Amino acid sequence: MRPETIGASSTAHPWPVCIVGAGAGDVSALTLGAADVLASADVVLVDDLVDDSVLRLISESAEIVSVGKRGARPSTPQAAIIDRMIVEARNHRRVVRLKGGDPFLYGRGAEEAEALTATGLEVAIYPGLTAAFAAASSTGIPLTYRNVASHVSFITATLADGSLHPVAGLAGPGRTLVVYMGRLFAGRLAQALAADGVSPDLPAAVVVDAGRPAQRLKIATVATLADAVVAIGGSGPLLSIIGEVVAKRVSCLPNGGRGIGAGAAHFAHG
Amino acid sequence: MRPETIGASSTAHPWPVCIVGAGAGDVSALTLGAADVLASADVVLVDDLVDDSVLRLISESAEIVSVGKRGARPSTPQAAIIDRMIVEARNHRRVVRLKGGDPFLYGRGAEEAEALTATGLEVAIYPGLTAAFAAASSTGIPLTYRNVASHVSFITATLADGSLHPVAGLAGPGRTLVVYMGRLFAGRLAQALAADGVSPDLPAAVVVDAGRPAQRLKIATVATLADAVVAIGGSGPLLSIIGEVVAKRVSCLPNGGRGIGAGAAHFAHG
Repeated sequence: MRPETIGASSTAHPWPVCIVGAGAGDVSALTLGAADVLASADVVLVDDLVDDSVLRLISESAEIVSVGKRGARPSTPQAAIIDRMIVEARNHRRVVRLKGGDPFLYGRGAEEAEALTATGLEVAIYPGLTAAFAAASSTGIPLTYRNVASHVSFITATLADGSLHPVAGLAGPGRTLVVYMGRLFAGRLAQALAADGVSPDLPAAVVVDAGRPAQRLKIATVATLADAVVAIGGSGPLLSIIGEVVAKRVSCLPNGGRGIGAGAAHFAHG
Repeated sequence: MRPETIGASSTAHPWPVCIVGAGAGDVSALTLGAADVLASADVVLVDDLVDDSVLRLISESAEIVSVGKRGARPSTPQAAIIDRMIVEARNHRRVVRLKGGDPFLYGRGAEEAEALTATGLEVAIYPGLTAAFAAASSTGIPLTYRNVASHVSFITATLADGSLHPVAGLAGPGRTLVVYMGRLFAGRLAQALAADGVSPDLPAAVVVDAGRPAQRLKIATVATLADAVVAIGGSGPLLSIIGEVVAKRVSCLPNGGRGIGAGAAHFAHG
């Protein structure tokens, strides 16, 4: 037995299963912590919404397992994902579970962490930038604004049973509502907002592929939200920002095309 | 005139004023995009809540200007911060405005961007991980959980005029409320929640210095929230997570002490 090995084992934690947020958009939104564990992983179980620019940080010797929905093919069942992580971790492989956005916001990361710790495995959670923040910075729409909105809500358009998410009290003066949504629910969402007394003229923005070069933006109102979702096109994840903050949009350079090193290299000096 | 210089100028954007989110916690939560512009900046105007591990990414030749509150000394007036950025940018220096958390959530980033673009300057916004996500990943408390909570609200404890933020409808079954708060408002916040019909037994967590080695956590209820804020101690930024998700807390390794390279170096291989 080599002394170096003993030394290393006694001073460092064993490698936990790392549940990692890939953030929304391209690799420029990834955290340094996430980049670090990705580069050291032996096996990475990946959802579909993770950008290719993030996947390029994974070591060439690592195994990448795609567990997301792809076209008409169903996603890997949750139990199979968890079983695979347990098997790999018990085989002393460094396991990363890579999820779009943040693992603790609509990511089922807590369910996976629970299942792993129940078997005695250690877990570490690496946060990620959720799409609302990628959309805000990249379109210039603030989520809060002094004396305009100090309350931000995030919802999914539908609940786990497929019914529309309740919206009572979530949109209107002083409030920003961000809806992570399927394209099919915009009309029903707008109706529910109107039924809650929200003005049809309240500004709304629809963003597709937030933070990616393919990003698209439509500015609308509650009354025209469903039309904007139809008109925006694209095929990536979609979210809506509903509230007076949309009218506070500032002109800024879009996020698209930054990538690693692009932040500096993209801009000339002076 | 050197041809190389002409080439560079004609193919790259001029350097915009970069309004950058430092994230909450240590440098492991910083985005790659933010790290990249920080390393290339000539002058960085910094708020107080930015961690030293983030500041170490700034080039040694860059000028760091502290504009936050420090002890009893008041912070630099907003107009003076903006004027300084304008002067520096017009002098063709690469300006970064570095803010704790995300610039578009309680960061006044949009106000600064507006003032800059009004003078004809270009602006780019770099998002950051806000404290709610640092606290969640680092304490193991998910912000949403299937069939438990699908609605998350962020508020500050007080409005711009100093009055308590309205909380009607924000806490209770199916909902997670995150309060970015001063320590002095926990009692009034708990009273307002009780007046809104929230159960005194609803779980609540208080987190100080989320994502930093100094992080502290107290698990409480709405009834004991104010006591927990007193008991938790520490001196850093504080937030509360209120809702059934607190009871879904999973055991995970804390964020503290990761830092750059620590994600991998910190853990031994199997």
